[in-house]
Amino acid sequence: MRAVDVITKKRDGGTLARAEIRFFVDGATAGTWPDYQASALLMAILLRGMTAEETAWLTDAMVHSGTRVDLQDIPGVKVDKHSTGGVGDKTSLILAPLAAACGVPVPMMSGRGLGHTGGTLDKLESIPGFRVNLSLDEMKAALARVGCAMIGQTAQIAPADKKLYALRDVTGTVESIPLISASIMSKKIAEGIDALVLDVKTGSGAFMKTEADSRRLAESLVAIGNASGVKTEAVITAMDTPLGNAVGNALEVIECLDVLKGGGPADLVDVSVELAARMLVLGRVADERADAERLVHKAITSGAGLERFRQIIEIQGGDPRVVDDYARLPQAPNRHVVTAARGGYLTRLDAELVGRASVALGAGRDRVEDPVDFAVGIMVKAKPGDALTPGAPVLEMHYRDRARLDAALTLATRAITIGDAPPPAARLIVGEVR
Amino acid sequence: MRAVDVITKKRDGGTLARAEIRFFVDGATAGTWPDYQASALLMAILLRGMTAEETAWLTDAMVHSGTRVDLQDIPGVKVDKHSTGGVGDKTSLILAPLAAACGVPVPMMSGRGLGHTGGTLDKLESIPGFRVNLSLDEMKAALARVGCAMIGQTAQIAPADKKLYALRDVTGTVESIPLISASIMSKKIAEGIDALVLDVKTGSGAFMKTEADSRRLAESLVAIGNASGVKTEAVITAMDTPLGNAVGNALEVIECLDVLKGGGPADLVDVSVELAARMLVLGRVADERADAERLVHKAITSGAGLERFRQIIEIQGGDPRVVDDYARLPQAPNRHVVTAARGGYLTRLDAELVGRASVALGAGRDRVEDPVDFAVGIMVKAKPGDALTPGAPVLEMHYRDRARLDAALTLATRAITIGDAPPPAARLIVGEVR
Repeated sequence: MRAVDVITKKRDGGTLARAEIRFFVDGATAGTWPDYQASALLMAILLRGMTAEETAWLTDAMVHSGTRVDLQDIPGVKVDKHSTGGVGDKTSLILAPLAAACGVPVPMMSGRGLGHTGGTLDKLESIPGFRVNLSLDEMKAALARVGCAMIGQTAQIAPADKKLYALRDVTGTVESIPLISASIMSKKIAEGIDALVLDVKTGSGAFMKTEADSRRLAESLVAIGNASGVKTEAVITAMDTPLGNAVGNALEVIECLDVLKGGGPADLVDVSVELAARMLVLGRVADERADAERLVHKAITSGAGLERFRQIIEIQGGDPRVVDDYARLPQAPNRHVVTAARGGYLTRLDAELVGRASVALGAGRDRVEDPVDFAVGIMVKAKPGDALTPGAPVLEMHYRDRARLDAALTLATRAITIGDAPPPAARLIVGEVR
Repeated sequence: MRAVDVITKKRDGGTLARAEIRFFVDGATAGTWPDYQASALLMAILLRGMTAEETAWLTDAMVHSGTRVDLQDIPGVKVDKHSTGGVGDKTSLILAPLAAACGVPVPMMSGRGLGHTGGTLDKLESIPGFRVNLSLDEMKAALARVGCAMIGQTAQIAPADKKLYALRDVTGTVESIPLISASIMSKKIAEGIDALVLDVKTGSGAFMKTEADSRRLAESLVAIGNASGVKTEAVITAMDTPLGNAVGNALEVIECLDVLKGGGPADLVDVSVELAARMLVLGRVADERADAERLVHKAITSGAGLERFRQIIEIQGGDPRVVDDYARLPQAPNRHVVTAARGGYLTRLDAELVGRASVALGAGRDRVEDPVDFAVGIMVKAKPGDALTPGAPVLEMHYRDRARLDAALTLATRAITIGDAPPPAARLIVGEVR
């Protein structure tokens, strides 16, 4: 088998055989396929597409590039959640302890923020002492003791994805549904979970801007998961405006604690309960959706979810006192309020621009090697649909230095649109794929 | 400017700006564009195409990666010919001396054989002592003295092409009309010529299998040449069966000498005269086509063309006695005749299979580093349309060792089709683009 023949076949619109896909993934990972051949094939895949079967084989080859974790020793149906990424998208920190409190083991492997979207690992690391780099054994121990572990991807998990993603990032080959699907699902399947709930974001602040594209991605992800024996379903949720009110790492942790205490913004509560309830049904601790929602709400009102989060923090080396004392979390020294330039209705608060403003403050990163400032971020003071008087607060910038604030403000002010009439009501839960 | 943005633009079907194309070509040549980014862009170009303007800019950037030779000191309109490659395609060795004998300076830079097609440099090197690696100064001196030089591409000529071609060869990105066009024309423009006649081959033995594709390539090449100030025209000629009767390096040299002596196969004479006459008109030594053809025929009958070839051989270090004594050329020790298995008409003698059989004998190379055996090759003893009695000779294999002969015979016998009725008459000159 020659690499150039595999490339040419896909270039001409052909369907690759399972052995050809394996040859590519193994070769790219081992370096026997030079990067220039791998990138040519990636571009051909992006432009010519892949069938569902090819995508499943690609995913499988990527899973087999590393370890598929064995969690058989942990009793129960292991369920994870994965989001395709958004702004203010902090549901993992809420639903993982809630699901665990309801009896669903949650072995969660998450990523870091990149571009305008945040990452679960960065949020967790804003808790002093919190370690996300547990070994697989440590993860299993945490899972056995508190029913949940929230960690980063280990080197054993789908190393092919790490290699290929780095190449895709610099060769314009990220935006391909088969490649995105295989990247996401190979890591999730390798985690050793039994079931998965996907939160596929759609809208201006999401990777997929249209509902049709988001649905296509959701369908592709669900098909791969189910074909690999991981019971998978997807919710498509809106990401035109930030989810909840907090954007920025420590600010988002506080908001999650608020939700676990029975408060927090309605949109964030709704999406968190939606996802957590699905985890409970998939995890077989509830037979029906209504029961599952009841259990989730009960875990909030009883404080069981909050208590579970405290245990997770403790077992992963973090300071559990942050749960009761937010002042123990990093705090930005300065605040600046962006106000409404005129009266009217907030018709749009663009998620991507708010996300980029938050990155400009230092809360995120443009390149993987950039450091993150856990303290800074943005609090949303008005949501689309709200009536505003002139000078009413819209965004509160939590910043460290003036130059970064100025850069953030040019983005943040562009995020705000005020009109004379309220915008049409937006759906939060746009659809599902199962 | 970032490489990934240029790649993404072309990936999405955009038109690249001149500066972006220059950035790519300069970067790929200097190595500041890593190969994996260059190959991703090449694949995007292959699948998305390039406008005529982009192709001209690409060509121009490749010309500027090296030297554009200055031949101003040589009086006259300098004209070259380029063929897209065929089997038995030896016209360069005929028309270069003929055009030079008629007063057109011919600075000819040629290539080597690769795959089933032969190369002018290999044919010339079958003449004992013939040096094709003249320096640019030596080339100019030869041009001034004998009106012609036939050399290989020097390192100063379009180094970007050398770099990009090597990458295209292993990444499935050869078969793109814009990339092929820029590759061919950048080298021709850099030669310093004033005019160019292109012989674009079409058919089973050609790179372009269909007349439509050949015409598209011809139009692309002609447009680039004329846009760069090189007056360019193209003839589209048939390459379904070998041109002339000889396939193999020394055998082809002998056939060229036959033509220059007034003999040789009719198809080879016709294509050579067609191309040489066009060179004379472009070179302004004849005003009209009829005059040009008369001059070309006169150069044959007078022996002026043959004499000029003798001078070319001599000035480039070769043994000019080969002109009168073919035994001074390498000769294969053995011959084997492939005969007609039945009576009928030869309906097909497939150029590509004859070419591959000749390569199997050792006359060509599959990889650039393979050595070439100048002596071996195939003499065509019957042309499509000829009536055959059972056992009549069709191909005469000139071979060195038995194992290679056996490999060649399996290809050569497949090249022959005998039917009950003569095939439809085939056009030799299929069309022109100017």
